[in-house]
Amino acid sequence: MAVPVPRIGRLPSGARDAITDVGGVTVGHATLDAGDVHTGVTVVRPHGGDPYLQRVPAGFTVLNGFGKSVGLMQVEELGVLEAPIALTNTFSVPAVAAAQIRQCMAANPECGRGLPTLNPLVFECNDGFLNDIQRMAVTEADYLRAWSAASADFAQGSVGAGRGMTSFGVKGGIGSASRLAGAHTVGALVLANYGVRDNLVIAGHAVGAPVAAMPAEPEKGSIIILIATDAPLDARQLRRLSLRAGAGLARTGSVFGHGSGDIALAFSTAYTLPQRPIEPMPAVAMLHDALLDGLFQAVADSVEQAILHALWRATSFVGRDGHMRPALADLLRDAQPHASAASGLFTVEPT
Amino acid sequence: MAVPVPRIGRLPSGARDAITDVGGVTVGHATLDAGDVHTGVTVVRPHGGDPYLQRVPAGFTVLNGFGKSVGLMQVEELGVLEAPIALTNTFSVPAVAAAQIRQCMAANPECGRGLPTLNPLVFECNDGFLNDIQRMAVTEADYLRAWSAASADFAQGSVGAGRGMTSFGVKGGIGSASRLAGAHTVGALVLANYGVRDNLVIAGHAVGAPVAAMPAEPEKGSIIILIATDAPLDARQLRRLSLRAGAGLARTGSVFGHGSGDIALAFSTAYTLPQRPIEPMPAVAMLHDALLDGLFQAVADSVEQAILHALWRATSFVGRDGHMRPALADLLRDAQPHASAASGLFTVEPT
Amino acid sequence: MAVPVPRIGRLPSGARDAITDVGGVTVGHATLDAGDVHTGVTVVRPHGGDPYLQRVPAGFTVLNGFGKSVGLMQVEELGVLEAPIALTNTFSVPAVAAAQIRQCMAANPECGRGLPTLNPLVFECNDGFLNDIQRMAVTEADYLRAWSAASADFAQGSVGAGRGMTSFGVKGGIGSASRLAGAHTVGALVLANYGVRDNLVIAGHAVGAPVAAMPAEPEKGSIIILIATDAPLDARQLRRLSLRAGAGLARTGSVFGHGSGDIALAFSTAYTLPQRPIEPMPAVAMLHDALLDGLFQAVADSVEQAILHALWRATSFVGRDGHMRPALADLLRDAQPHASAASGLFTVEPT
Amino acid sequence: MAVPVPRIGRLPSGARDAITDVGGVTVGHATLDAGDVHTGVTVVRPHGGDPYLQRVPAGFTVLNGFGKSVGLMQVEELGVLEAPIALTNTFSVPAVAAAQIRQCMAANPECGRGLPTLNPLVFECNDGFLNDIQRMAVTEADYLRAWSAASADFAQGSVGAGRGMTSFGVKGGIGSASRLAGAHTVGALVLANYGVRDNLVIAGHAVGAPVAAMPAEPEKGSIIILIATDAPLDARQLRRLSLRAGAGLARTGSVFGHGSGDIALAFSTAYTLPQRPIEPMPAVAMLHDALLDGLFQAVADSVEQAILHALWRATSFVGRDGHMRPALADLLRDAQPHASAASGLFTVEPT
Repeated sequence: MAVPVPRIGRLPSGARDAITDVGGVTVGHATLDAGDVHTGVTVVRPHGGDPYLQRVPAGFTVLNGFGKSVGLMQVEELGVLEAPIALTNTFSVPAVAAAQIRQCMAANPECGRGLPTLNPLVFECNDGFLNDIQRMAVTEADYLRAWSAASADFAQGSVGAGRGMTSFGVKGGIGSASRLAGAHTVGALVLANYGVRDNLVIAGHAVGAPVAAMPAEPEKGSIIILIATDAPLDARQLRRLSLRAGAGLARTGSVFGHGSGDIALAFSTAYTLPQRPIEPMPAVAMLHDALLDGLFQAVADSVEQAILHALWRATSFVGRDGHMRPALADLLRDAQPHASAASGLFTVEPT
Repeated sequence: MAVPVPRIGRLPSGARDAITDVGGVTVGHATLDAGDVHTGVTVVRPHGGDPYLQRVPAGFTVLNGFGKSVGLMQVEELGVLEAPIALTNTFSVPAVAAAQIRQCMAANPECGRGLPTLNPLVFECNDGFLNDIQRMAVTEADYLRAWSAASADFAQGSVGAGRGMTSFGVKGGIGSASRLAGAHTVGALVLANYGVRDNLVIAGHAVGAPVAAMPAEPEKGSIIILIATDAPLDARQLRRLSLRAGAGLARTGSVFGHGSGDIALAFSTAYTLPQRPIEPMPAVAMLHDALLDGLFQAVADSVEQAILHALWRATSFVGRDGHMRPALADLLRDAQPHASAASGLFTVEPT
Repeated sequence: MAVPVPRIGRLPSGARDAITDVGGVTVGHATLDAGDVHTGVTVVRPHGGDPYLQRVPAGFTVLNGFGKSVGLMQVEELGVLEAPIALTNTFSVPAVAAAQIRQCMAANPECGRGLPTLNPLVFECNDGFLNDIQRMAVTEADYLRAWSAASADFAQGSVGAGRGMTSFGVKGGIGSASRLAGAHTVGALVLANYGVRDNLVIAGHAVGAPVAAMPAEPEKGSIIILIATDAPLDARQLRRLSLRAGAGLARTGSVFGHGSGDIALAFSTAYTLPQRPIEPMPAVAMLHDALLDGLFQAVADSVEQAILHALWRATSFVGRDGHMRPALADLLRDAQPHASAASGLFTVEPT
Repeated sequence: MAVPVPRIGRLPSGARDAITDVGGVTVGHATLDAGDVHTGVTVVRPHGGDPYLQRVPAGFTVLNGFGKSVGLMQVEELGVLEAPIALTNTFSVPAVAAAQIRQCMAANPECGRGLPTLNPLVFECNDGFLNDIQRMAVTEADYLRAWSAASADFAQGSVGAGRGMTSFGVKGGIGSASRLAGAHTVGALVLANYGVRDNLVIAGHAVGAPVAAMPAEPEKGSIIILIATDAPLDARQLRRLSLRAGAGLARTGSVFGHGSGDIALAFSTAYTLPQRPIEPMPAVAMLHDALLDGLFQAVADSVEQAILHALWRATSFVGRDGHMRPALADLLRDAQPHASAASGLFTVEPT
């Protein structure tokens, strides 16, 4: 019998329990499977328009900077993102960044001439265990495919950029969740490719036996965490939110390992900032910082929940050279008698 | 029957399970109780000499910068600390900083003239619920008293800077722990004054009922986390270590609340750096970054353990205006039948 | 014949050519002269009210963090300052910080209880050559005296915190200037205590001979740079402004020496942010970042000009133990024939 | 008659007055000219080996983060660079990053599998005025060509990545210089593509008339500054060095304009750090921070000098759509009578 995914925390979720509960946010995937290639691209669009023209306030935290994501320097300087957010494997970052540039030039012929050059925003994890990453297989067409597929409803688990990812020795991938904090919604989406087997903690419980047969390897993964909210926050406040992703991540057993690029980026959909200085700037009353605690809790909880969703929805996978990663859900199902007897693990808590 | 303090993680502890397991580190307290004044000073000395002359490599992470600690700007620029580390209440920071300056001038008449001015290093939490913080009662003599008392053996709980501190609605204070990672020791000392009642998690378990009678108040506290290690690390690597304190902190239920100054500083005792440039610099082979994961785990585990020690060793306290904070250990003892029945919480794990 | 102070750049100045051209900003001094004590306090008030209740958006840049200023950690986290900005000597920082705390508690009895603890904001330079800094002579009364004296009209040169300061081997101290950038005003105030004799550059010209008789000593000073503007900017943008202070500073011959605490803080008077979350937050349309270049130029120019004002208005001074610093204006006057013949230095450029 | 390039400062230069005076450093270019394409790649190799295996300590400063360079996040976390440093145009960053990845995999088949993924390190400026940047013309072969051409002797001016660059309304490009500070050498290489016409300052003198005919446009450029030294410094100290590039840059009239990506990276050749943790770490006695002032001066002076070299060695250029940038040297030569009469500008100072 399947073990239901535990529910994290006391805050209610949005209708989808996904990042797309934040109005206007959509997610799309392109998944590649061909021979030893098992990888993909996932795109998160902050709104339905062109973020190059209508930029989105954003802030981020580098929990561990062992990573090759591109675009963060300018996000820090200007406090905005201006490209759809793309996730892919480490060696495909250049292809996806080039795709973002070409897409922007196609829509905005003045890009790089009368208007500024686009700042691509591409995050990555290394899926080299299951995917032949050295093929650099992702193409610009794959990015566009993921972008075009973006929708409020989207798949989780071993899809898109999550296709070849591994976590805690089991199959990782894409997960998402949301939490409501008062009048505002917080959504999280993770690309989970991190974690050392023996450290896996689920809803406060060390998993132990069910995963003990997996190899215990040093941390070589990464996790990318995206946070969306409809609360009116500026870049400084969004950086504060993004830091709290680390609390959700830590609760799953991560100590932000040396070899793991652990990065969290938060953006707000409450307003946009025009690329062109001749357009008027919005007059926004930001949330008072003393009212952020509910949002902080929502970030930590939705991130932990999104990670569990990634682990639960990933399916057992055989990748390049016959490398295999089992689904955690399968391991837990098989180990369930043990788990129940020991501690009543993984029952669904009431909301 | 007393509920034993849970043991965190799989790494072994040092002989004292305290920060003073890192050779040369000593800790001293001065505790003030007079009328509505219930506060104090705690001093951590990184070695037996004068850190102004033999400086200590250090790095830090500001998890949440709602705080009034002094000295971090220069630690970041130079990568060293040069004063004993002092902890006290928020409004007593100036008195303790002045005490450090006077102490340094007394020992080094050239301080601020032929030699640089001392960089005081004082951390703080707000103990204003139990202590009449507005009295600004701590004096320079109190700092010197704590400094003189420094020893490898030291009290934990409601002592020194921890005298008036509150955590999760119960009594907080000073706690310490250590973990061994291969050939190296990591020690942690916390000044715990943070946490929202309903969020308290102990060894993965939400505490819930035992503390439910305490008032649920917004986060207004802080936690100061000090990490010592004998591993040869430079300031950049020590910053990396300090960040992992956040993982231990998050596991106890913190989301790094808005009003909480959550700061972690790490230092190494493996070598010192001379104040005077005419003295030779040590030739040190640092640890390879790829070997840091064990230390990261030791940081997270010792910090979580040190917090539990602070909570377990704090005693029930009635402070200013009759304000009261119970000891968590008392609440757990009284609630034990419930706790055991529900989930077998808080049993001591074997090392 | 006196050498007039060169005028920097092409932007016009405000009516006073001082930081108080930014509406609402006032400056006050307390100067101490007694025996070998020659020091003081300077206070910059961002507006006429209590900044603890009506906080001011602020950002800063640490060009070189060899310094002991207090308060910046919380400014970075929250993006506001909430205390009047105080300048003093290095060892008097604790006394002035304590004075700010007491002043705030007197006006706001809930400070540190129902309301947050105050974040003191005190900057410093080491005036130990002319002043017996080890006396720690500044008292809380001196801070209050400077605060009470704050006015739109204020003295520059060897006054207040500038009393004992040295720059480039000559007398330093307080200087101020302003520039207009389109509809907005930028004002700068510096506490100049930095610079190596042979590096002094004035309006692009190496000064050389006139100061050659001064001792050439290693950089042991510091410079504090405060920037005010009435442009509607958030903390991120104010940090961007503050960085441009470094351009003005570099033009005078500074390379941000190792031993010099070079810190620039910028604040906006365009709006305030309430301490209490129950008060409404202002809805502010910030300036578009693409329109900041004029302000950047105004910052660089007003900082360079403020430094020249500090040097020109400082007067020859004999301090502790007979230590002497001549006024640059005197040296230039005496050397004028040489200067004129060589390069026509230091003529006033038309605005 | 040609106007000789002014010499900056009092420190002596190395034999080549170029970054390659730092032993082991080499520089190579690939220049592209075809139709409206006028761009290229410049590669700086820190040593003759493979930096992926023998990594180089590095630190950097983002003076203004309006830029799309890749690789800095990991440099900050680990304090090393592990790829040759590449410079190119903004939209060619992905192609060059992909080239670095492929080059590394070819030499190290375990890259991204048994060994970590490579961290590409590519800097950029926007040469879109003279170059048809939207073509994204640079290929991986161009990067390899530049890499293969690396030599201690290399061209400056309108070559490699500098082919299409503009500065202060005149032709920009590649420049380099070096300075000796005691026993150590500091070298700088710039890709100059920044600056507003009316702000150009050369050796302290506003240039004014000679460039007055050029169009006065808002800052849309960028400057990349690379610093090499043979002094034994760690990543923290190298970051300190890199910041001083801003002093040299400011002296030329830059205020770090909003639209300019102004980035400085410094590395040391004094030792390398192995990629593989099984290899021994070097025991290095770093330079005492109090001895850095000479290096700071050398950084500021060599950067200012390198910028002048870029401007002097660039040649007049007609690029895409007939866009033209004259050589500053030509403008100065034509304006020389005026310049001499006014202020004796641009004479060569004796070393």
